[in-house]
Amino acid sequence: MKPFTFFGRFSRAFHDHPSLSRILLVSTISGGGLIAYSEANASFYSNNGVETGTRKKKVVLLGTGWAGASFLKDLNNPSYEVQVISPRNYFAFTPLLPSVTCGTVEARSVVEPVRNIGRKKNLEVSFLEAECFRIDPGSKKVYCRSKQGLDSKGKKEFDVDYDYLVIATGAQSNTFNIPGVEENCHFLKEVEDAQRIRRTVIDSFEKANLPNLNEEERKRILHFVVVGGGPTGVEFASELHDFVTEDLVKLYPKAKNLVQITLLEAADHILTMFDKRITEFAEEKFSRDGIDVKLGSMVTKVNEKDISAKTKGGEVSTIPYGMIVWSTGIGTRPVIKDFMKQIGQGNRRALATNEWLRVEGCDNIYALGDCATINQRKVMEDIVDIFKKADKDNSGKLTQREFQEVIDDDICVRYPQVELYLKSKGMRGIADLLKQTQAENGSNKPIELSIEELTSALCQVDSQVKFLPATGQVAAQQGTYLAKCFDRMEECEKNPEGPIRIRGEGRHRFRPFRYRHLGQFAPLGGEQTAAQLPGDWVSIGHSSQWLWYSVYASKQVSWRTRVLVVSDWVRRFIFGRDSSRI
Amino acid sequence: MKPFTFFGRFSRAFHDHPSLSRILLVSTISGGGLIAYSEANASFYSNNGVETGTRKKKVVLLGTGWAGASFLKDLNNPSYEVQVISPRNYFAFTPLLPSVTCGTVEARSVVEPVRNIGRKKNLEVSFLEAECFRIDPGSKKVYCRSKQGLDSKGKKEFDVDYDYLVIATGAQSNTFNIPGVEENCHFLKEVEDAQRIRRTVIDSFEKANLPNLNEEERKRILHFVVVGGGPTGVEFASELHDFVTEDLVKLYPKAKNLVQITLLEAADHILTMFDKRITEFAEEKFSRDGIDVKLGSMVTKVNEKDISAKTKGGEVSTIPYGMIVWSTGIGTRPVIKDFMKQIGQGNRRALATNEWLRVEGCDNIYALGDCATINQRKVMEDIVDIFKKADKDNSGKLTQREFQEVIDDDICVRYPQVELYLKSKGMRGIADLLKQTQAENGSNKPIELSIEELTSALCQVDSQVKFLPATGQVAAQQGTYLAKCFDRMEECEKNPEGPIRIRGEGRHRFRPFRYRHLGQFAPLGGEQTAAQLPGDWVSIGHSSQWLWYSVYASKQVSWRTRVLVVSDWVRRFIFGRDSSRI
Repeated sequence: MKPFTFFGRFSRAFHDHPSLSRILLVSTISGGGLIAYSEANASFYSNNGVETGTRKKKVVLLGTGWAGASFLKDLNNPSYEVQVISPRNYFAFTPLLPSVTCGTVEARSVVEPVRNIGRKKNLEVSFLEAECFRIDPGSKKVYCRSKQGLDSKGKKEFDVDYDYLVIATGAQSNTFNIPGVEENCHFLKEVEDAQRIRRTVIDSFEKANLPNLNEEERKRILHFVVVGGGPTGVEFASELHDFVTEDLVKLYPKAKNLVQITLLEAADHILTMFDKRITEFAEEKFSRDGIDVKLGSMVTKVNEKDISAKTKGGEVSTIPYGMIVWSTGIGTRPVIKDFMKQIGQGNRRALATNEWLRVEGCDNIYALGDCATINQRKVMEDIVDIFKKADKDNSGKLTQREFQEVIDDDICVRYPQVELYLKSKGMRGIADLLKQTQAENGSNKPIELSIEELTSALCQVDSQVKFLPATGQVAAQQGTYLAKCFDRMEECEKNPEGPIRIRGEGRHRFRPFRYRHLGQFAPLGGEQTAAQLPGDWVSIGHSSQWLWYSVYASKQVSWRTRVLVVSDWVRRFIFGRDSSRI
Repeated sequence: MKPFTFFGRFSRAFHDHPSLSRILLVSTISGGGLIAYSEANASFYSNNGVETGTRKKKVVLLGTGWAGASFLKDLNNPSYEVQVISPRNYFAFTPLLPSVTCGTVEARSVVEPVRNIGRKKNLEVSFLEAECFRIDPGSKKVYCRSKQGLDSKGKKEFDVDYDYLVIATGAQSNTFNIPGVEENCHFLKEVEDAQRIRRTVIDSFEKANLPNLNEEERKRILHFVVVGGGPTGVEFASELHDFVTEDLVKLYPKAKNLVQITLLEAADHILTMFDKRITEFAEEKFSRDGIDVKLGSMVTKVNEKDISAKTKGGEVSTIPYGMIVWSTGIGTRPVIKDFMKQIGQGNRRALATNEWLRVEGCDNIYALGDCATINQRKVMEDIVDIFKKADKDNSGKLTQREFQEVIDDDICVRYPQVELYLKSKGMRGIADLLKQTQAENGSNKPIELSIEELTSALCQVDSQVKFLPATGQVAAQQGTYLAKCFDRMEECEKNPEGPIRIRGEGRHRFRPFRYRHLGQFAPLGGEQTAAQLPGDWVSIGHSSQWLWYSVYASKQVSWRTRVLVVSDWVRRFIFGRDSSRI
């Protein structure tokens, strides 16, 4: 409970002095603004310095989601020519999509044209609204298709050359090949999805209100099913619950006793990626709100009007529904699957990159965000080379001094699992680990390890390899990281700043990508939010809702969206949500 | 020029003291607010007084446009049960649709749920989202169809009984059966049309930006054609021009020299319903703005990529286009056509009603707004009965006293053309007209007219019969008028307040509907608007733009839309229009 205390006090302060929250909101918004302003004015590179006559390197960026947009926003070096290709000409602030589904926030308020994001730079950026359907690393080309007919023959395809390719196409919803999901369910990945859900909710209420229907049919139509108890599914369920109880029942009084929201989750709890306290609170709140949470329910089939789910015991139940929102996780896009086959990654689930976000087996191709995973190198794979590298005098024994001189810091940078392992054991450095191993082996002379002893000291370390979650936060940090690498490519070629190359000579150009988790929110409806911050600080309730408002307002990519989102919130407080079917 | 002076001064005052405009804006908005507030609180009838045991009369209202919404808003008598049926569950503030096409105002800001409009009353109002496809006056039923499948057999149709039917379904765009219009043109009647146009404009810019196109193709794609030089067409053309020059060229710099806007108008001038000064100003402004206005161009055919038009000389020219917005006038909806055939009005262009908005030949069916026209009774048709009614003593001669006693006021109320005729001749009353006729006939004894003399005196009068324009203003006034008639139906049954029945006994229950023209605006882009106010006052320029803002803000149906529309305008001033393709 210790880490809880500080945040608990912090959050209690907000409870006791609600005005504090407003101050935080205002200051965070203006803080965000200052950052945005300074960003808009920053110009690290002058255009004049680049006209050296050499051809600019062409960077092709696929995708304009969190990864793509933050790469584009942070890239500053004018020695590149950037070509952005995406089927959407805007960046969408996806954490607010559940709010868009019920009109708490308008769709227009969470999008910003990509051209605006790229425009502020002294960088040559151009944009093509098209979808890449094939990547050809051999000829260094991407093949694209526009949704619109192009030339007089209606040709819709074209290709684009690249010097560097940055793949940030994101993922698609995962149906797990369950029959009927694709045809009958709504997903919640794109702005259009959210708009469609909003229209369908209103449609359901209008439909249930028509004559010639019996009670049972009306109940079916007003039965909203959410599949997946992750943050998106949970947030949608609570948004919908608020929309219904705060706004719709006033206009559709007859519907009040007919509406039902059901949440199906295959695991034993919802919000499993969060602290247990949050999970419990959410489950209790949903039960109080009348949201029917069915845990341990695996969907097996979706028909036009009913959905079948199997419990862990194997019982299959079929329930009629009016609308389903499917939010169970992500799957690989076809273009990425095809590319993975080409480069021999066909049996993987996502594009594997090394720790510098470069696609394994490809030069000059980088992948980030939800379409990729970092394939963290294991210490055990490299243990022989680590030993060799460290054993400067080739004595076959590693002294503590050798270890510290050559490799102490580098090994933690190169293999972040080492640091995590040490932390989990309460140790300050590798020396401690080596000492302990020696002590366990009954020796207490100055540290001197054989390769077998080193292996035995480090053999548990790789259990700490962490996979990054598929969140916007990870994608955005990767985008920023890669942009900084691109900015300093030439500079770091000369003065590499990464860790020692274990299997080769010299140093890596850059430090590998490291994710800094800043916390995560789970809005639970009724102006209550659960927040889990670094160090496992947990806060639940109205105060975190204000923190949520503050953080999401400050994280907006532009002043326009910031003002719009905040005014949407205010509008909702005053007038409620609109139920016009447009 | 005389009437121009007052408004000229008024508008000059605004020029010299721009702050005045802001004051007007603020005061008009708050004024509108006060009205809205008092309306919300007004409750003329208490629910308690109605429970008399008799069945409530069922009023079925078809349509939720200007006519339907204002009828619904103003109806207060709780002795009715109101059933609203419309395919749209919202009222749309149509004068702002051209602004929605370019994102100056958001679609959501101009709509208000019908249920909100009907909810404030102590009146029993219910709404069905469906389209009426057949009216059966014989069985007093309307047959409706929902867009959504209904019962388990997917039946989508149902019928509704009525005691009174109020038809306010509006009109549809008129294609004049010109081939290709339906398939290739955008209309601008519904909110969805405006949203679609917005997406298509952005699509055009994205498409013209793609590779593999030659200059000619790019020019074609960025050629926007507006057909129809009425207020809607003109406003759309100027909105589009502003959108392109103020916002899009910044993001699509290459498109700057390729964009072209063409306005095709079959008549000799645009905005023909306005004063000549406005027409001239608009044509000059468009020519300065580079909008190509082709007058006297009759569209003959629209293909997928080009449009053919014929000049008055008979020359046919074909021009390639990227997008067409068709805004040439209104046509009859199929359901109304079918109904007209049933009641023997098959050869008319719109549903004919009498001056009390009751459909001719039908009891208890009323029609208002764009789907109907008032068939104003001619004086000459009734001249024999007028004479008989006035000639109390059956002397075969009409004395001035007889005339004044029986019919003087009533005739002006019953036949508004009489008043218009007198005004056009500078006379104060019918007595003047009769005197003049007598004088022309060389007689100067106290007025005493034969039927022939009365006929000759009034024979010119019917030339002044005016058809009402198909505007929201007319429709709204009709809705309010009819609601008031319905409210006072019983009361006026006992104490009729209308004019004398010329062909029957007693008086009409109500005074006939009279339209009060409050003026009309034509926004011309670049923060300039032309305004034509009653008495032919004309004002053009920035000051009228502020007047336009004030009037449109105050005319919003709810506080929510009022706040949203004003904040959209402010947002546009600060951040420009958004160009995300959603």
